[in-house]
Amino acid sequence: MTTRRDFIKQSSMVGLVSLVQPASIISGIRSKNVNAMNNENTYWPDGSRLMISVSMQFEAGGQPIDAESPFPPTMIKGFNDLPAQTWYEYGYKEGIPRMLELWDKFNIKVTSHMVGSAVLKNPALAKEIVQRGHEAAAHGMNWSSQYNLPYEDEKKFISDGVEAVKKVTGIRPVGYNANWLRRGENTLKILQELGFTYHIDDLSRDEPFIIKVNNKDFAVVPYTLRCNDIMLIEGRQFSADQFLVQLKMEFDQLYSESFTKRRMMSISFHDRIGGTPQMVDAARQFFEYATKQKGVVFKRKDEIAQLALKNKDTIRE
Amino acid sequence: MTTRRDFIKQSSMVGLVSLVQPASIISGIRSKNVNAMNNENTYWPDGSRLMISVSMQFEAGGQPIDAESPFPPTMIKGFNDLPAQTWYEYGYKEGIPRMLELWDKFNIKVTSHMVGSAVLKNPALAKEIVQRGHEAAAHGMNWSSQYNLPYEDEKKFISDGVEAVKKVTGIRPVGYNANWLRRGENTLKILQELGFTYHIDDLSRDEPFIIKVNNKDFAVVPYTLRCNDIMLIEGRQFSADQFLVQLKMEFDQLYSESFTKRRMMSISFHDRIGGTPQMVDAARQFFEYATKQKGVVFKRKDEIAQLALKNKDTIRE
Amino acid sequence: MTTRRDFIKQSSMVGLVSLVQPASIISGIRSKNVNAMNNENTYWPDGSRLMISVSMQFEAGGQPIDAESPFPPTMIKGFNDLPAQTWYEYGYKEGIPRMLELWDKFNIKVTSHMVGSAVLKNPALAKEIVQRGHEAAAHGMNWSSQYNLPYEDEKKFISDGVEAVKKVTGIRPVGYNANWLRRGENTLKILQELGFTYHIDDLSRDEPFIIKVNNKDFAVVPYTLRCNDIMLIEGRQFSADQFLVQLKMEFDQLYSESFTKRRMMSISFHDRIGGTPQMVDAARQFFEYATKQKGVVFKRKDEIAQLALKNKDTIRE
Amino acid sequence: MTTRRDFIKQSSMVGLVSLVQPASIISGIRSKNVNAMNNENTYWPDGSRLMISVSMQFEAGGQPIDAESPFPPTMIKGFNDLPAQTWYEYGYKEGIPRMLELWDKFNIKVTSHMVGSAVLKNPALAKEIVQRGHEAAAHGMNWSSQYNLPYEDEKKFISDGVEAVKKVTGIRPVGYNANWLRRGENTLKILQELGFTYHIDDLSRDEPFIIKVNNKDFAVVPYTLRCNDIMLIEGRQFSADQFLVQLKMEFDQLYSESFTKRRMMSISFHDRIGGTPQMVDAARQFFEYATKQKGVVFKRKDEIAQLALKNKDTIRE
Repeated sequence: MTTRRDFIKQSSMVGLVSLVQPASIISGIRSKNVNAMNNENTYWPDGSRLMISVSMQFEAGGQPIDAESPFPPTMIKGFNDLPAQTWYEYGYKEGIPRMLELWDKFNIKVTSHMVGSAVLKNPALAKEIVQRGHEAAAHGMNWSSQYNLPYEDEKKFISDGVEAVKKVTGIRPVGYNANWLRRGENTLKILQELGFTYHIDDLSRDEPFIIKVNNKDFAVVPYTLRCNDIMLIEGRQFSADQFLVQLKMEFDQLYSESFTKRRMMSISFHDRIGGTPQMVDAARQFFEYATKQKGVVFKRKDEIAQLALKNKDTIRE
Repeated sequence: MTTRRDFIKQSSMVGLVSLVQPASIISGIRSKNVNAMNNENTYWPDGSRLMISVSMQFEAGGQPIDAESPFPPTMIKGFNDLPAQTWYEYGYKEGIPRMLELWDKFNIKVTSHMVGSAVLKNPALAKEIVQRGHEAAAHGMNWSSQYNLPYEDEKKFISDGVEAVKKVTGIRPVGYNANWLRRGENTLKILQELGFTYHIDDLSRDEPFIIKVNNKDFAVVPYTLRCNDIMLIEGRQFSADQFLVQLKMEFDQLYSESFTKRRMMSISFHDRIGGTPQMVDAARQFFEYATKQKGVVFKRKDEIAQLALKNKDTIRE
Repeated sequence: MTTRRDFIKQSSMVGLVSLVQPASIISGIRSKNVNAMNNENTYWPDGSRLMISVSMQFEAGGQPIDAESPFPPTMIKGFNDLPAQTWYEYGYKEGIPRMLELWDKFNIKVTSHMVGSAVLKNPALAKEIVQRGHEAAAHGMNWSSQYNLPYEDEKKFISDGVEAVKKVTGIRPVGYNANWLRRGENTLKILQELGFTYHIDDLSRDEPFIIKVNNKDFAVVPYTLRCNDIMLIEGRQFSADQFLVQLKMEFDQLYSESFTKRRMMSISFHDRIGGTPQMVDAARQFFEYATKQKGVVFKRKDEIAQLALKNKDTIRE
Repeated sequence: MTTRRDFIKQSSMVGLVSLVQPASIISGIRSKNVNAMNNENTYWPDGSRLMISVSMQFEAGGQPIDAESPFPPTMIKGFNDLPAQTWYEYGYKEGIPRMLELWDKFNIKVTSHMVGSAVLKNPALAKEIVQRGHEAAAHGMNWSSQYNLPYEDEKKFISDGVEAVKKVTGIRPVGYNANWLRRGENTLKILQELGFTYHIDDLSRDEPFIIKVNNKDFAVVPYTLRCNDIMLIEGRQFSADQFLVQLKMEFDQLYSESFTKRRMMSISFHDRIGGTPQMVDAARQFFEYATKQKGVVFKRKDEIAQLALKNKDTIRE
């Protein structure tokens, strides 16, 4: 547990000291968590300073035949893009295994949103993820949109994905992620009906919050497009070192804010993108950087959802 | 106030000395401000060396239902892009509050061009911006084009936006920014009629200038696409550190020129883009860099417009 | 040959030590090569640690009249894009000669997949590549798709390319690369019939593996899109220094893994892209970086294919 | 003048020494200039080591009403894009004046290809360019394609541009650059007829060469897309610092080659792009870097063409 004195001493060594400000300066309007501040200046009920949630999306193998890939979209209709398929295979043959090694090395537990059809194609790998202590969460039965499905079809789409994950891993998912985050008007109701406790398809905050769905509490554990390999790496917008630098900048700012607010950082890796050597090297460097700070904790999203749901200071919308 | 001797001593420490040249070298053709040089070598009437204007665009909440976002433009017609909406919500839930903290930390006053409908949706936040000393400026009633509107419609579009800002913040805006900078042939006349003193939809100079509109002086406080988050960050062209480096390079050159010309630097942040942790960290690093130089002043655009309008050495077109 | 002790001592100097882990930690499921570990901890039959395969694609001169180039695709039909042609000419006038100098300087032997028509246009250069010790491999007769060709047409397309290379260089290629990696359903069968021993149009692994084609072993020496100039440089996604940094990050991770798995790194340069001064400077810096590590070996793809085919620990699919 | 001994001593300080190789190693096939090597190891008749040609394109003001700009291409037909026009105005109000200051500071003479209509719009600035010692070259009468014009129309298009430049600057251009480098089949013949001595619309080499046009020698002084602001900066592919790093890498490699071949480096800046503070800061940093090496010379393209035309060792095609 960190005392304020220790924190200042420490942060001054990494140039953050100018960002530290006494809690009393914080203006009332946004400091809804101010009551949560205990005498060690933490805003998480478990005493953490900054909570980091890592996603490892398990999708490869479940992609449709014409799924987007780095290859030019010039295939003549009626032919299969064979090298594109091998690009996806990389996700389960190299990507997830490599990431699993890294998570273990830093003893980080992550959340893996799993496409149902991908799990059925590679059950042993899905099972290993759970055996290593990570969260198996749901990501739909197939790699396709659900926001446009009728209620019953969408419910089946979600349920089938849940059953696939449960059958293979033994775990019933409690967290959901829709294809491209695109839930429909019924999605949250269905999730509540099916016993989910949280979803991630929201980008509005840097901390979890609670909404009412079917008159019951439901947690939102926000996702990220900023620290997300599919947004930055697949289209070759960023090099792996740019991804790394952005993670560090994101971390520096959120960590400095964590003194006066409850803060969470979200990072997302996809099997065939985040699992490349370049990206795992970037992740490693980030973990080495972040774990040097006191009070930085990596947690699964189901754990974060529970912390949020059970705590009176969590933001409610 | 900086003497020339001090300046040279100081700039030599940051490697700028080779760029400093005696005013006498400057060729006549472009040094319209040469008369403005006082014995402390400043070209601003208030004695500043380089003036920096920061924009904080207040737009989120006012976006149309199908507004552009980082999500792929593949939504089926008739469905709402729910995660895209949460991406915008971030602007007022996290973005502007975070930026406000940073401006205070460096005691910088900025200009916030506010979309009328966005202000009506989040009045408390708009009001807080003004209470913290920033400028509330106008940005149209809605997030839509005005260059194609008939005269009266455009006038109403602008007036309604003004009234929305005034109603919420108590301040009547004097500065204008059109959607995507795209004013029409009537826009400036309307602005003059409505009592505006300046607009920013011009990229032609690195200093303010005066034009005649309806036979009266009207100030142009140039905007920027180069140091603009929506141009560089939203489309993932640049990482946050690239944005930072470009700001520094822009600053270095303009600061070196400020010895022989009146110079202004413009930087633009948008609520949901510039307000992310990564970008606020970049802004912080830039402010730490820029404020180390003597004579660097951050000012609101209404103040800059007044300085320009009242000074005989301001460029007139 | 490196001892484990030497390796640890050395790697600690470059910050890799935290990634080294005893072989005993490696989980069984993915360590198919575990039996290959000899007492010097290498997984390649020749005692190498990490094998690097460099491609130098020989295509310029064989491009179609309307081939993609950095120029905007706005030419009026019926006119030739003359500057685009000179952009391609650079490939054989400057690009390949420059790369050949660099390969010699580091004594690296590379694999050159050669388009048949390009070879016929510049036979002396093709011949020089072979005379300097590099591998002449096949890349089709023309710069065009083959996945859509009927069996006999595709077979002729491949054969004609082989004959062109053989006629000019005296070497009969044993390795194949399809245009944009896009083989068809018959391609591998045809390659096996024509006496090829390997192909590269697969991205699924970071090491070579064996598949059965026509009931006979056939080697797959995986290619790369990650360390590939046409993917990252031609479209100006990356600057040359970003390309360099990604190579280093890829190398660092694969080298650290090479202690517990058989690992191969693939890098691809194209005549008119990788042969520019900027990119050859990047390649030089990478080679200086990589060759400082023990056990790093650069090999031609035909050699790698042979090592894989003759070794009992090679992955079989 | 540099002796070989000096060169090695010097280059070892910048890490280039590993690239230096005795002339005797150079293979015959590409070293057409080998006879040119004098006892000071230079391949330029004037004793220079590496020749750098800087372009400053004078185009703004001559753009068509719907010219491409950084603004989104969403204007409704029939309306003028007013802010886009101010983006172009920046080219002559700030861009060229700023670059002229930098060229003077480093005593560099550049080549300015001038669009006829742009020159007529800002004659004083065009004249000042020449008065400061830079080359006024031709770039067509208007900002439009010429490759698709009939012979007589194209000849008039070129002539009119020449006359505009001559009328304003007093100089008759001898060098030509077509819009987007896109000359037609008749262009070179017309240029020869009109008394031009060189053109730049060729990317095939890193040194000037001679071609026969109408049975007379005509010089080609190659242009660049690699070190070209319109290719890398306008579309926000690169940040200004990436542009700088690529210039340095290009320079490092070409300088190392200049020991054994005649080498030229081409850099291109456009008024409204290269003339921004960020880019002029990048140019300044590059000049400081490059001018530290011995034998680096900046020359106008007309001078380079003359050196090439009068020298027996120049490559002939």
